[in-house]
Amino acid sequence: MAGNTFGTLYKLTSFGESHGRGVGGIIEGVMPGLFLDLEFIQNELNRRRPGQSEITTPRDESDQVEFISGVFEGCATGTPLAFVIWNKDQKSGDYDNLKDVYRPSHADYTYQSKYGIRDHRGGGRSSARETIARVVAGAVAKLMLKQFGVSIQAFTSQVGEIKLNKPYQDLDLLMAENNIVRCPDADTAMLMIQYIDDIRREHDSVGGVITCIIRNTPTGLGEPVFDKLHALLAHAMLSINAVKGFEYGSGFVAAGMRGTNHNDEFYINEGRVRSRSNFSGGIQGGISNGEDIYFNVAFKPVATVLKEQKTVNKQGDEVVMKAKGRHDPCVVPRAVPIVEAMAAMVLADAFLINNSYNSVP
Amino acid sequence: MAGNTFGTLYKLTSFGESHGRGVGGIIEGVMPGLFLDLEFIQNELNRRRPGQSEITTPRDESDQVEFISGVFEGCATGTPLAFVIWNKDQKSGDYDNLKDVYRPSHADYTYQSKYGIRDHRGGGRSSARETIARVVAGAVAKLMLKQFGVSIQAFTSQVGEIKLNKPYQDLDLLMAENNIVRCPDADTAMLMIQYIDDIRREHDSVGGVITCIIRNTPTGLGEPVFDKLHALLAHAMLSINAVKGFEYGSGFVAAGMRGTNHNDEFYINEGRVRSRSNFSGGIQGGISNGEDIYFNVAFKPVATVLKEQKTVNKQGDEVVMKAKGRHDPCVVPRAVPIVEAMAAMVLADAFLINNSYNSVP
Amino acid sequence: MAGNTFGTLYKLTSFGESHGRGVGGIIEGVMPGLFLDLEFIQNELNRRRPGQSEITTPRDESDQVEFISGVFEGCATGTPLAFVIWNKDQKSGDYDNLKDVYRPSHADYTYQSKYGIRDHRGGGRSSARETIARVVAGAVAKLMLKQFGVSIQAFTSQVGEIKLNKPYQDLDLLMAENNIVRCPDADTAMLMIQYIDDIRREHDSVGGVITCIIRNTPTGLGEPVFDKLHALLAHAMLSINAVKGFEYGSGFVAAGMRGTNHNDEFYINEGRVRSRSNFSGGIQGGISNGEDIYFNVAFKPVATVLKEQKTVNKQGDEVVMKAKGRHDPCVVPRAVPIVEAMAAMVLADAFLINNSYNSVP
Amino acid sequence: MAGNTFGTLYKLTSFGESHGRGVGGIIEGVMPGLFLDLEFIQNELNRRRPGQSEITTPRDESDQVEFISGVFEGCATGTPLAFVIWNKDQKSGDYDNLKDVYRPSHADYTYQSKYGIRDHRGGGRSSARETIARVVAGAVAKLMLKQFGVSIQAFTSQVGEIKLNKPYQDLDLLMAENNIVRCPDADTAMLMIQYIDDIRREHDSVGGVITCIIRNTPTGLGEPVFDKLHALLAHAMLSINAVKGFEYGSGFVAAGMRGTNHNDEFYINEGRVRSRSNFSGGIQGGISNGEDIYFNVAFKPVATVLKEQKTVNKQGDEVVMKAKGRHDPCVVPRAVPIVEAMAAMVLADAFLINNSYNSVP
Repeated sequence: MAGNTFGTLYKLTSFGESHGRGVGGIIEGVMPGLFLDLEFIQNELNRRRPGQSEITTPRDESDQVEFISGVFEGCATGTPLAFVIWNKDQKSGDYDNLKDVYRPSHADYTYQSKYGIRDHRGGGRSSARETIARVVAGAVAKLMLKQFGVSIQAFTSQVGEIKLNKPYQDLDLLMAENNIVRCPDADTAMLMIQYIDDIRREHDSVGGVITCIIRNTPTGLGEPVFDKLHALLAHAMLSINAVKGFEYGSGFVAAGMRGTNHNDEFYINEGRVRSRSNFSGGIQGGISNGEDIYFNVAFKPVATVLKEQKTVNKQGDEVVMKAKGRHDPCVVPRAVPIVEAMAAMVLADAFLINNSYNSVP
Repeated sequence: MAGNTFGTLYKLTSFGESHGRGVGGIIEGVMPGLFLDLEFIQNELNRRRPGQSEITTPRDESDQVEFISGVFEGCATGTPLAFVIWNKDQKSGDYDNLKDVYRPSHADYTYQSKYGIRDHRGGGRSSARETIARVVAGAVAKLMLKQFGVSIQAFTSQVGEIKLNKPYQDLDLLMAENNIVRCPDADTAMLMIQYIDDIRREHDSVGGVITCIIRNTPTGLGEPVFDKLHALLAHAMLSINAVKGFEYGSGFVAAGMRGTNHNDEFYINEGRVRSRSNFSGGIQGGISNGEDIYFNVAFKPVATVLKEQKTVNKQGDEVVMKAKGRHDPCVVPRAVPIVEAMAAMVLADAFLINNSYNSVP
Repeated sequence: MAGNTFGTLYKLTSFGESHGRGVGGIIEGVMPGLFLDLEFIQNELNRRRPGQSEITTPRDESDQVEFISGVFEGCATGTPLAFVIWNKDQKSGDYDNLKDVYRPSHADYTYQSKYGIRDHRGGGRSSARETIARVVAGAVAKLMLKQFGVSIQAFTSQVGEIKLNKPYQDLDLLMAENNIVRCPDADTAMLMIQYIDDIRREHDSVGGVITCIIRNTPTGLGEPVFDKLHALLAHAMLSINAVKGFEYGSGFVAAGMRGTNHNDEFYINEGRVRSRSNFSGGIQGGISNGEDIYFNVAFKPVATVLKEQKTVNKQGDEVVMKAKGRHDPCVVPRAVPIVEAMAAMVLADAFLINNSYNSVP
Repeated sequence: MAGNTFGTLYKLTSFGESHGRGVGGIIEGVMPGLFLDLEFIQNELNRRRPGQSEITTPRDESDQVEFISGVFEGCATGTPLAFVIWNKDQKSGDYDNLKDVYRPSHADYTYQSKYGIRDHRGGGRSSARETIARVVAGAVAKLMLKQFGVSIQAFTSQVGEIKLNKPYQDLDLLMAENNIVRCPDADTAMLMIQYIDDIRREHDSVGGVITCIIRNTPTGLGEPVFDKLHALLAHAMLSINAVKGFEYGSGFVAAGMRGTNHNDEFYINEGRVRSRSNFSGGIQGGISNGEDIYFNVAFKPVATVLKEQKTVNKQGDEVVMKAKGRHDPCVVPRAVPIVEAMAAMVLADAFLINNSYNSVP
């Protein structure tokens, strides 16, 4: 298997399965001397943790991160930061009956077909539990980015049929953390929570959309042509489990617009080049222009539903299966910190690459 | 500048500016012995070429590809395939008045800000002329993929307000090449052509959507976690000039769906595992499952409009500018082969990576 | 810090410091289904372990490897193999007096200068303890290579003034493991052991040479131009602590030879192309030709000697220091498995890359 | 074929065959704004050119470099620098009789075996003509390094039995360019020239050694563990055609030395940490310490000798062959600029990587 590393200079190489010994990774490219705020990192993990509310899976995995290397007297030394989150509280027995069954819209069949062997327990490597490593590496990236004033904030903007219809500029994004669905508009949040709760009672699941806003980015981040900043963000987001789509700035709406309306007029504000509108989403030609970067990420409904489903097994028989265990009816609230983490890694990497030739006299 | 290489084993490293000497690249990972069908490759370039119809820019750049290395007696030797398309017919004078002006929603300002120097003529490296190299590398990838029966076909599914509303299964995709807008439905094509023509007369531009279908992919392509097949497709598509969004399978629609409707039920057909629906878009857990892969790519309206626009210049003055020259009112029809090319490169690379450990006894 | 990953498809990303919590890594590219022979892997670690004999440091670190992911029912699943060897038995106190002192010919000064911060205990990341991770990844690579009959065997061919002067073809390489200095010639081994023991009594240290032989390699391994098989071996070997030189085949002797003597005449043996002599060292144009691959690796004397030495400290004062603790007078015997491990990783990676396009129809 | 790219941020991707249309490459990572001194670059190519003296092959290929992209008004823009040197003066007919013959100690057999197809003319991709691209990329790297005062100077230190036995500190290295063998000691140079001339008359060839000195390197270059500065230099040097060995600092001599003699004592000179001796060769723990970096590179005798040799052909017959055409009896004098070029690329890359996190506040 290839593809377990993300990034060029700021890099995460991740490992781990859902029901193995643990999940973790190695982070490279961390600025030597950076204070590793363990409380902040753990708090990011807690935002992703199952069991934080009645609408997320009741597993309380706690997910304590343990750093193994790269830290000395509280600070990053510049050497690789290895970390692990040991698995606890797995109920692998919940999966015994699914050992040879290909769950619909899961990765069971494709893993078996590709590798000829798979750890079926809880989805193994394909489980969303893998995203824990991303949250840790993203938290460290955020600590780096904070030093430049860059802030990254994501929130739930759609759950099934319930959409948040206000522009992000009209919202206090910090309010997103005040409710369990992570929507910064209290009224919409309430509707979403009710909606998910109804779905849960029906033993069904539902999709949603996360919107992410990155503020105070300097100009110059992103490498043109194949590694445009938004291409890396798209890569990052689509690599998250259950993601089906990505759009930045005007996104799919742009397809219906005209150039005269879509173009962002430049002007000078306090000696700085600014644009009046921002359909460009803060990125032009793949390089940040200093305006807000914003994008949407679409999530499909969770594939595990607590109902009978038809499918096939490894032996080639058509069978009926029913999932057991504890599952989110909607992953979106818990995916908010994951979206932020991947965005932070992309930005930290872009910073380092941009610095490499920027700082040469 | 980093980011001029795409791919891991099947790789394109590209070079060139719009008004420099030429555009080209180096392709690595080509199967030794592959017959390099130059007519096919040139035909792919012709599909991208400006001036092919009344709705595209009237420049006839001809764009003849010239291979410099890697070919012996008509076949690829396995060594790097270098190629160049010499620039002709540039009217750099059209850009003299824009030397220091930052065109709205172009990359002028960000390049200047990042590099402190730029070739302003025709957008330089940020010009869509760079995509020529992608079409060549994609054509060679298609020749490789043909040997496995894989077919890749893209078409225009939206232009501004005109949408093609039929499922792709009901269309004869080959018909897309029968009209200048590359929409496989003749009636919709006519509406689109009329629409673009109207926009052109108004000296405006418009966006659109391209849909791409990949058929006959074997199971097992794509590397889970960070290099999921659809994450690489997203990266590839968002790296194309003017692209604002990507969705595969059910895409953004999935956000409003329920798991019980969205899940793709497996069954056995002629001894093979198949799925009845295909909301997964042929990819599960980042790995192809053998069903059709399909995705949508959103394009913004062309930033160059032949009207006066307010902006700023390098000196920090607010100015009024007006573009001259020959420009497409809608890039979508010419972007169809570019979308296919990037998809072909992703697939060829996935083939090679999958082979690397598959073939070990 | 970059540079913690070795390999393209068969990859080790390593982490860990000498006196931190542990040392380990993540291995990618392991053939799915490979039986992970833990006894073999542990045995390789034991060959590297300190304290195995009177001529190596008396630390008995035991060095038990613990796999965290990528294994299911005893076999590799194809997902990343993460492992850790927890540090025990460190006497960090031995280094307290050296906190701010730059030990001569160690990496203390360069790390401090580059990172502005360092874990000084036992050399931190620059300690040879880091090579544990290489031995594990090399052992797994050996398990893969065994399936093709490839064997890799290194031995001590020089210690200080004592040289083994027989051609490797006249030796039974397996005998190298029968003595503590790992020289396959019993008489020379005895001289070497005596020599090291004398050096140890004088509180001094000494260098040496390791020779490595790779047999039964198929033709076709190695990628020409920049990634010639011997260039990757050189990179691998020079990345080992204390290594000062690498030569393969005829090596530095070739500089004094003539073409008519140096050329390896081809002939046909049992239908296979063979060469009568093998000054090429089994590699021509960077690609294996099926003959034995052999090379020499030069090691400098251990920088830590138990005598007073002049040096400077972080504050810029000239000081006199004396190392405490337990140190090898000669690293060469314990470096034998490290040389083999790095060679195995290079070969396993070359196998995977060669397969990637070889197996395409 | 993989392996056509060298470097991480400062990168050369090369292409081209000996008797194809040309040889060239794409350089990435060039500092935007760098003045591209074409005269200097061409002069470096002239140093490598065949036919410069009576002891090199009489082909006068002229080798004019042509830049295709990345330059605007004389300066690098930061975008990829593509270049080509068109092939002229090839006498492919000289190779007709060798179409199916595997020349001893050449890459004919291994290429055929690996790829199943090869351009046999002049060795195709395996020809040393490929090194032209390295010289161009190295010249551009030198222009970057000059801005920091770094100088790189290589010279011939051995030809067959003739060795230059003075320490490099006692030589005026600039004198190396004053004679055709590129040895800075005039007397030794004369002996070497006579020696090569004798070999040439005997239709034989001979090997040699190149020594390279890098001065004024700042501390901090090189990435520890796998990408130690000397490991990258070793990789770079062993990737040059005909190279059989590499040693830096004390090199193979270190194997016979004791720690007390080999250790480089630190002291303070003008407020800077310096070492009295420099057995470390300017690199400790893989990171430059500011002292001179120096290393030796061993070359085998040219494989092409103008005498009859026994070998086999593609059909499996044992045959007798005799090379025609124009060939160097000793490649070492012309390889001097190639060694410098590869060293310059390694250093430029190390600069960029080191800058990436160094410049972050």
